[in-house]
Amino acid sequence: MQRIANLIVKKDDQVLLLKKPRRGWYVAPGGKMEPGESIFEAATREFSEETEAIPVDTHLKGVYTMVIKEDNQVVDEWMLYTFLAKDYTGVPLKENREGILEWHPISALAHLPMAEGDRTNLLFAVNERGIQYGTFEYTTEFQLLSEKIQQSNE
Amino acid sequence: MQRIANLIVKKDDQVLLLKKPRRGWYVAPGGKMEPGESIFEAATREFSEETEAIPVDTHLKGVYTMVIKEDNQVVDEWMLYTFLAKDYTGVPLKENREGILEWHPISALAHLPMAEGDRTNLLFAVNERGIQYGTFEYTTEFQLLSEKIQQSNE
Repeated sequence: MQRIANLIVKKDDQVLLLKKPRRGWYVAPGGKMEPGESIFEAATREFSEETEAIPVDTHLKGVYTMVIKEDNQVVDEWMLYTFLAKDYTGVPLKENREGILEWHPISALAHLPMAEGDRTNLLFAVNERGIQYGTFEYTTEFQLLSEKIQQSNE
Repeated sequence: MQRIANLIVKKDDQVLLLKKPRRGWYVAPGGKMEPGESIFEAATREFSEETEAIPVDTHLKGVYTMVIKEDNQVVDEWMLYTFLAKDYTGVPLKENREGILEWHPISALAHLPMAEGDRTNLLFAVNERGIQYGTFEYTTEFQLLSEKIQQSNE
């Protein structure tokens, strides 16, 4: 089962997002966990590889079960771990081989083009306290079929 | 890849543990996630199935990458999600088909027989703020080979 970790930096009311060329959709920098990595190691490594900046004050904000369905059948299931960092060191790249890195105001998360589950997850990460849990069901074309969310605070 | 969720209830400085017959080792109630479940749903469902009590004020405390090695080769890898609940409703069972349910003082976590990674993880869950991340490497007989830990606070 695939495990994906991503990380959104929020600083001065701006967030750093990656615009991917295929659909023009925005994502938080991230990628696949390597065998034996912790989710924290994976999120910080992927962010640093994709931006050349180092996240600071990094904390888990969401754990999601991602289900892909085609013709009402489950064709894939994986885990997504979303982290927030409140600062960074270094100078982030303007682009990488995955797409264009852009700063946007937090409020832009409400309307930038992205997978609708990512919108739920990133808005929570930057605006709310605690941790969010949930299941997102998507089509193979990444249209959101359903979302079921829980959250908790320490 | 297997995903396991467990949950330790801490109330009045006592914790509820399951003593398993095979080695006499203690664990927190828990078990395998079902397809499409969130980790929160899995932890609370498994706890309720194993104890017949309902956890209250449940929050994620740790996410661990579990690696099993034999002759220096990785033979299995899975994810463990550990939750803490600060209260419960109902009357927990005294035993279930998995073993005996016992209340112990928090301090007993330091010396009760258990997998050494579980000790790290449960001591963190009941005593510390924030979230712990890490990788535990075990032999197939559950002797701890290594642990690598990170933690963060909101």
